[in-house]
Amino acid sequence: MSSASGAGATRGTQGGRVRVGVVGLGRMGRRHAENLAHRIPGAELVAACSPIAEETAWARDELGVGASYAAYEDLLRHPGLDAVFLITPTSLHADQIIAALEAGKHVFCEKPLALSLADCLRVEEAAARRPGQIVMIGFVRRFDPSYRDAFQKITAGGIGRPFLVRSQTGDQLDPSGFFVRFAPTSGGIFVDCSIHDIDLARWLLGDPAPRRIFATGTVAVHEDLRPLGDVDNGVAVIEFAGGSIACLYASRTLAHGHDTHTEIVGTAGQLTVGHNPRRNRVEIADVHGVRNECVTNYYERFHEAFLVEALEFVRCVTDGSPPPLTLHDATEATRIALAVAHAHRSGTIVELT
Amino acid sequence: MSSASGAGATRGTQGGRVRVGVVGLGRMGRRHAENLAHRIPGAELVAACSPIAEETAWARDELGVGASYAAYEDLLRHPGLDAVFLITPTSLHADQIIAALEAGKHVFCEKPLALSLADCLRVEEAAARRPGQIVMIGFVRRFDPSYRDAFQKITAGGIGRPFLVRSQTGDQLDPSGFFVRFAPTSGGIFVDCSIHDIDLARWLLGDPAPRRIFATGTVAVHEDLRPLGDVDNGVAVIEFAGGSIACLYASRTLAHGHDTHTEIVGTAGQLTVGHNPRRNRVEIADVHGVRNECVTNYYERFHEAFLVEALEFVRCVTDGSPPPLTLHDATEATRIALAVAHAHRSGTIVELT
Amino acid sequence: MSSASGAGATRGTQGGRVRVGVVGLGRMGRRHAENLAHRIPGAELVAACSPIAEETAWARDELGVGASYAAYEDLLRHPGLDAVFLITPTSLHADQIIAALEAGKHVFCEKPLALSLADCLRVEEAAARRPGQIVMIGFVRRFDPSYRDAFQKITAGGIGRPFLVRSQTGDQLDPSGFFVRFAPTSGGIFVDCSIHDIDLARWLLGDPAPRRIFATGTVAVHEDLRPLGDVDNGVAVIEFAGGSIACLYASRTLAHGHDTHTEIVGTAGQLTVGHNPRRNRVEIADVHGVRNECVTNYYERFHEAFLVEALEFVRCVTDGSPPPLTLHDATEATRIALAVAHAHRSGTIVELT
Amino acid sequence: MSSASGAGATRGTQGGRVRVGVVGLGRMGRRHAENLAHRIPGAELVAACSPIAEETAWARDELGVGASYAAYEDLLRHPGLDAVFLITPTSLHADQIIAALEAGKHVFCEKPLALSLADCLRVEEAAARRPGQIVMIGFVRRFDPSYRDAFQKITAGGIGRPFLVRSQTGDQLDPSGFFVRFAPTSGGIFVDCSIHDIDLARWLLGDPAPRRIFATGTVAVHEDLRPLGDVDNGVAVIEFAGGSIACLYASRTLAHGHDTHTEIVGTAGQLTVGHNPRRNRVEIADVHGVRNECVTNYYERFHEAFLVEALEFVRCVTDGSPPPLTLHDATEATRIALAVAHAHRSGTIVELT
Repeated sequence: MSSASGAGATRGTQGGRVRVGVVGLGRMGRRHAENLAHRIPGAELVAACSPIAEETAWARDELGVGASYAAYEDLLRHPGLDAVFLITPTSLHADQIIAALEAGKHVFCEKPLALSLADCLRVEEAAARRPGQIVMIGFVRRFDPSYRDAFQKITAGGIGRPFLVRSQTGDQLDPSGFFVRFAPTSGGIFVDCSIHDIDLARWLLGDPAPRRIFATGTVAVHEDLRPLGDVDNGVAVIEFAGGSIACLYASRTLAHGHDTHTEIVGTAGQLTVGHNPRRNRVEIADVHGVRNECVTNYYERFHEAFLVEALEFVRCVTDGSPPPLTLHDATEATRIALAVAHAHRSGTIVELT
Repeated sequence: MSSASGAGATRGTQGGRVRVGVVGLGRMGRRHAENLAHRIPGAELVAACSPIAEETAWARDELGVGASYAAYEDLLRHPGLDAVFLITPTSLHADQIIAALEAGKHVFCEKPLALSLADCLRVEEAAARRPGQIVMIGFVRRFDPSYRDAFQKITAGGIGRPFLVRSQTGDQLDPSGFFVRFAPTSGGIFVDCSIHDIDLARWLLGDPAPRRIFATGTVAVHEDLRPLGDVDNGVAVIEFAGGSIACLYASRTLAHGHDTHTEIVGTAGQLTVGHNPRRNRVEIADVHGVRNECVTNYYERFHEAFLVEALEFVRCVTDGSPPPLTLHDATEATRIALAVAHAHRSGTIVELT
Repeated sequence: MSSASGAGATRGTQGGRVRVGVVGLGRMGRRHAENLAHRIPGAELVAACSPIAEETAWARDELGVGASYAAYEDLLRHPGLDAVFLITPTSLHADQIIAALEAGKHVFCEKPLALSLADCLRVEEAAARRPGQIVMIGFVRRFDPSYRDAFQKITAGGIGRPFLVRSQTGDQLDPSGFFVRFAPTSGGIFVDCSIHDIDLARWLLGDPAPRRIFATGTVAVHEDLRPLGDVDNGVAVIEFAGGSIACLYASRTLAHGHDTHTEIVGTAGQLTVGHNPRRNRVEIADVHGVRNECVTNYYERFHEAFLVEALEFVRCVTDGSPPPLTLHDATEATRIALAVAHAHRSGTIVELT
Repeated sequence: MSSASGAGATRGTQGGRVRVGVVGLGRMGRRHAENLAHRIPGAELVAACSPIAEETAWARDELGVGASYAAYEDLLRHPGLDAVFLITPTSLHADQIIAALEAGKHVFCEKPLALSLADCLRVEEAAARRPGQIVMIGFVRRFDPSYRDAFQKITAGGIGRPFLVRSQTGDQLDPSGFFVRFAPTSGGIFVDCSIHDIDLARWLLGDPAPRRIFATGTVAVHEDLRPLGDVDNGVAVIEFAGGSIACLYASRTLAHGHDTHTEIVGTAGQLTVGHNPRRNRVEIADVHGVRNECVTNYYERFHEAFLVEALEFVRCVTDGSPPPLTLHDATEATRIALAVAHAHRSGTIVELT
């Protein structure tokens, strides 16, 4: 597939492979780049963009990417480019998405969409002017086979009417506290972590409107977070219109591994996704009892979902079908996450309309 | 063991068996009576009290209880009686406990202690005047072997510093809604169910002082609860002094069984008690997948704990040792449960001091 | 209940409690004695018999047993004695059972019935002459609630036609090798341990006739077993008439605890009893992963079954109902276990008729 | 990578991608072809071979394979071909591997290597004359991440000295009995299914020499197997030199799904791979209890392993490293599987040297 650059990509182009440029080659950027280079038959990774020369050299040498750019605006001018993958700091997302849209490109962008509602809305407006172009934000859990199975079971009526989601995002304790460096710009634990659970709750509960939010938290280990007003363990409750509820937990301090799991309670049953984050199918019986090891980070848990996510984005670009989640979903998740963070900082119940 | 009635029971009496009168012979009363009659070597069930003749007849015919009383005050005059087991409506607890204390008896009373803080304090005062008599409120989970094991592991430092308790009390859905009849006098879901989780949270977190409470809930199935201001699914968050948190869930509508479980998160690990409420050690592999059946009610789950509870009460009476939980613990659980119910009804954050 | 001693106990005596004498007060004997003294409402532990004075003193002081005997024949003459519990060396079982029968007593005897088929048959003959007296051999797993649930599910057709039992008896490794002392008289691992699995296989498969047996084993840890021709890990396969199969494993060297479990495969599903021998309902998540501790010995696993077993024996004595397993069941289990041991030692396929 | 056709491929060729021809496009052949076409960066699927025109048309249309051959000898003459993937009837394996070797090609071939020891040895001899060419037989479980993790833990001493493997291959019941059609040429359940468990046992126990074998089986459902001397449920025990033991179970009739699992017992612990063949990370709590769905066939269970297997084969071809399992391993697994089948049919203990 090849779009006339400038004239704008359009949904539903036929034939050929989607020509993708990857922007940002940090740890997650490299993972996306590897998937695009090797595991997405419908895509061709034609260009890489990073201000760091070593990173673009890596893309060239390891992945055989033919073109490298230090500047994002140059990448957007790469001949024949169809789409960009943005794995860049959140503060850049809105402007980069809009620039790509204006350059006629389809856009995949890592979550969160932005750190302000205004930025989210700016992106939505820009995208609305380009209905033929795909913009998809990477809420990766929606692409995880287990979460998808749960969603399908709910849709099929398997648990009656779902009314409660309890969901957690739990990172394994890093005693070095490496993440604390990013805490000032991450938006805090609720915006950085719980936003996934918020998106899941909306999805699994049928997109109810949020009404009231309470949040609290504690610093269990990382004392350096106190001056930032952030915590390493947070709890939030969201009331939705119609009576459904989400109860969220986020942690940076788990001992046993990365433990992200979600429970959906309905009137006729409940589903749990990811309880006991088994690393694989090995069970050990020894002096410690009977046990399994756990995944240690979100990529080990969700690597397959990242692949499915990219496959689906490319499929949408190729056949013109709408992405499984909309820009509005990303805006809503951001809006709610920001409200949760505000509820936490203010110590009040935040009302949304 | 035999106390001179009227002169007052005292802790630490030697010899003989504790002579017990059971008061209230509803479903739970009969279970306590059976334990006392057959499975508590240190106790002798000498009298039964109920206004319903069939119930005292049952105690006589099935358990061989020698004396029956329709009126509580008559039971208290039973010659040689050492202790009473009160399994009566909550509204009667305070007066009945005080009457027993004044009659010189040791008292075991089912939870909750009362439906008002004033009643709790009246009982505490009466008990303080009779330091030689045991008064123990039946927070049965503290006697469950698994909860005890968790408590010991925490005390031994097994999970570092505990800072978060997530706990649920979940009853299996009774489509007939039988429990709704009792809803008007039960105090509502938080006072009736979550009080157990509140007591567990205090116990497992080291008795921290509660500071702020948020609660919400929804009617998932039992529409008849709406006029009462009650719900069949409730969520509450309690902030404690020192930064620890309890996150509670109570449900009357679970499909799979009675599911009471508790997670305690610490800085070096976490414990879960009761996740997947297995009925026994049988696993079934068939067209439904691999599964286990679940306990269907709290008695099936906690029958062993009820026995341990009675054994310990009798042991305390016999050797004069203090009960493993105090009247103040019962008062605190009640006070917090009432505050949770208030937070729910008022829609505000309730502050406690 | 009281029988005229000498005139012989008869099934179905009414009224009163069964007067029991316990014979053998080693570790298991004391456990049976405690159950009889405290937890079996229908029984009265009236006498204890042991050649070791400290043991009978324990029964007197701790359990309040009124009569002590050093000699078994004297115990049998205890006035009013209804039944004996034999927890004695296997080599004594046959003679002791027969003596009790001839003295008119009901008999409960720990497994195995004997170490030779001839002894089993002698007992069967003696019992046949006293049809009014109960003789029950303690195959305790038949009284375990989980095994019973499995049996009922099978009987109800839950797994179609059962055709394969895979069952193991696994003791936790005792590095001291204490059990090796008893190896010369225990009959070896198959007679000592697998006999339980053999009895289960017969029960769960509907009492099929054994046809061919293969067995093998290895010494993994306890080298002292080699001179005895015994092993610390053994495997056996039994073909039954009609095509069903039992595959057994016994181990003395498990690291994680006592692991006894059984799988029953049928044409429409399979049941597993006891896989992952959880100690209780606590799950631990820490640096070792997610785990549970395990029961450490068979009594921790089967303590409830030992109680049920005694309750049922007493019930049979009281109301004259037949025991849930017959002497012939015990003979068959012994006969097959001896054949397994022979198959192992001889290295041949043993055929049974 | 490109080898001079005819001159013979050699290990360790540098540069380029391995040019592969796939032979056999049945269900598994198509899966291998899809992996080679899309998911193996180091490979290029350049040719497909099948006598069925629809199958080669599928490869051309769906995978873009440029060259199609009806005859195997023609495929071998495809210009520049480096390697063949043989997913053909077992009876053809030996001759096809030898022909490929003589044509200078590397060979990947599905298990089993052959249905006779003589054929295995013929292949070994042919391969020995071509030491520069890779021949790898697809014992796919050796490439499964969980089995690999277990192997590494064993190698690292995690369970002490391993001495017992209990392993099963269990297919879900297909009431249509489709597989029965292939039973006459599959070699029977032990050669078709247990060969995997045999290979695993050798691998996980450190390649011990087999000494004695016992096997039995039963027809639980598929009566049509009786005339063939085959069974739908089989059990085998293998004694190895040095005292280690393998206990195998194979079934064609499981109700709950495809259940392949393996337990390795050592002197300091045990590992289980694949117990409870969870389909994904979803747990369902409803009227059936708490359960998970199961994988329904071996490909759903091992799809990742099939990919790893092909990646490793291509890596070996590319860098000249030896394959992780040798032709001798394949011969040994076949030799033992044939002996198991003989033990079953003859009803005797088969001795191997």
